[in-house]
Amino acid sequence: MNLILLFEEDFTAQERVLLYGRRLEHIRKVHRANRGDTLNVGLLNNRMGRGKIIAIDNSSVEMEITLDHEPPPPLPLTLVIALPRPKMLRRILQSVASLGIKEIYLINSWRVEKSFWSSPFLAPERLNNELAIGLEQAKDTIMPMIYLKRLFKPFVTEELFLLAEGKNSSSISTFSNPPADSAGTNQRRPIAITAHPGAITPCPEGITQSSILVMGPEGGFIDIEIDTLEQTGFTTVNIGKRILRLETAVPFIVSKLY
Amino acid sequence: MNLILLFEEDFTAQERVLLYGRRLEHIRKVHRANRGDTLNVGLLNNRMGRGKIIAIDNSSVEMEITLDHEPPPPLPLTLVIALPRPKMLRRILQSVASLGIKEIYLINSWRVEKSFWSSPFLAPERLNNELAIGLEQAKDTIMPMIYLKRLFKPFVTEELFLLAEGKNSSSISTFSNPPADSAGTNQRRPIAITAHPGAITPCPEGITQSSILVMGPEGGFIDIEIDTLEQTGFTTVNIGKRILRLETAVPFIVSKLY
Repeated sequence: MNLILLFEEDFTAQERVLLYGRRLEHIRKVHRANRGDTLNVGLLNNRMGRGKIIAIDNSSVEMEITLDHEPPPPLPLTLVIALPRPKMLRRILQSVASLGIKEIYLINSWRVEKSFWSSPFLAPERLNNELAIGLEQAKDTIMPMIYLKRLFKPFVTEELFLLAEGKNSSSISTFSNPPADSAGTNQRRPIAITAHPGAITPCPEGITQSSILVMGPEGGFIDIEIDTLEQTGFTTVNIGKRILRLETAVPFIVSKLY
Repeated sequence: MNLILLFEEDFTAQERVLLYGRRLEHIRKVHRANRGDTLNVGLLNNRMGRGKIIAIDNSSVEMEITLDHEPPPPLPLTLVIALPRPKMLRRILQSVASLGIKEIYLINSWRVEKSFWSSPFLAPERLNNELAIGLEQAKDTIMPMIYLKRLFKPFVTEELFLLAEGKNSSSISTFSNPPADSAGTNQRRPIAITAHPGAITPCPEGITQSSILVMGPEGGFIDIEIDTLEQTGFTTVNIGKRILRLETAVPFIVSKLY
């Protein structure tokens, strides 16, 4: 936790918060912070700053908060991944949130096990918990949006098609906080790619516009899924000879792209 | 498991192997392979090819093996990381092996908890198990070397100093299998960097020579450790505003460098 993420309900006065539970534990056991110490804090979907500890004991910590700067710019990348197994999903979400990705679609695919869709980890509060851990790691406050899409073909041919055309479909929020250096680039069509082992085209590098990155499940998308994605405007690209797991491949590709 | 990793002791005849245990389970339950099917195989520290299933049942699988091509080139990067907590270490090793890294130093640092050094995960066979999973993921056969270094300062000022000078110290194997396009570059001094949040210098990109990448523990190296590394010739670099966890940062940096 390089930043303590605050929520509106933590505030007891304009610049005072009272924290319990996981954040208190972390402040006591990892930061080993005492009265008078200051910590990095940030208000959910809002500014960041410092919190000075006014009082701390076994049951709560009280801080005086100053919020004086903006969170880092979001990564202008929309991530579309076949739903991973629950254990891996947690780590992926933490990692993805730490990278600054703000739009995440979890989709079905032939090789996604049906049971994954009934995992209790898919409850919104649990998904948000994992994302919050990623934000706290990376020092960010802007909570990513997650969309669950259980029907591959209608999602790809309708919603993803509109996204790839540079049109946001109705359920999709726009990047409210585009990077400072990308003024006007939101008008451009995004780079739309599917990372898939064995593809011929190499992954683009050093792009300046927004992008949509699609990645398959363990074992990969099946041919008909790749065909559907290609017909929807997604270029199938490779990232080298090695087949990387989702959790390794996502940071690897993000780093290539931007 | 995109490749079944074979060991000398699996061979019952020149081109025959008999497998049990984890690999059998995987072939039966994930590949759902039957007699007559062929799978990707590779012999440890040797060539890769195909294995045709001759017989398979609950207790073993027998394959006829043809090894006809070389494993992918190694990544010419030496990774030096403060020993992570055991649970994270397993994932890091899998990820690092899948990226093609062949030299890994696990070192001590002020913020490494002492208890991590007595973890049963540090037993060589357990470390190699995790690395094997990474090789099987990425389709590679060359087992990385791991070195455990419990004394920060002597390691950095003596061994790491020699490595950064481009001289291998006695305990260190050379890259036996340099990338095809790097002929002669082993003579050059490697790029020596420490990735550290808050550093001013940005991480180099698109390098062509070998490199040594040092990364600290959760919470980071302390100032005196960074000083020691800088005096040893390591440039302290940042990878952006966001602080990434080791497992996210390593693929991110590898992708920037090469």
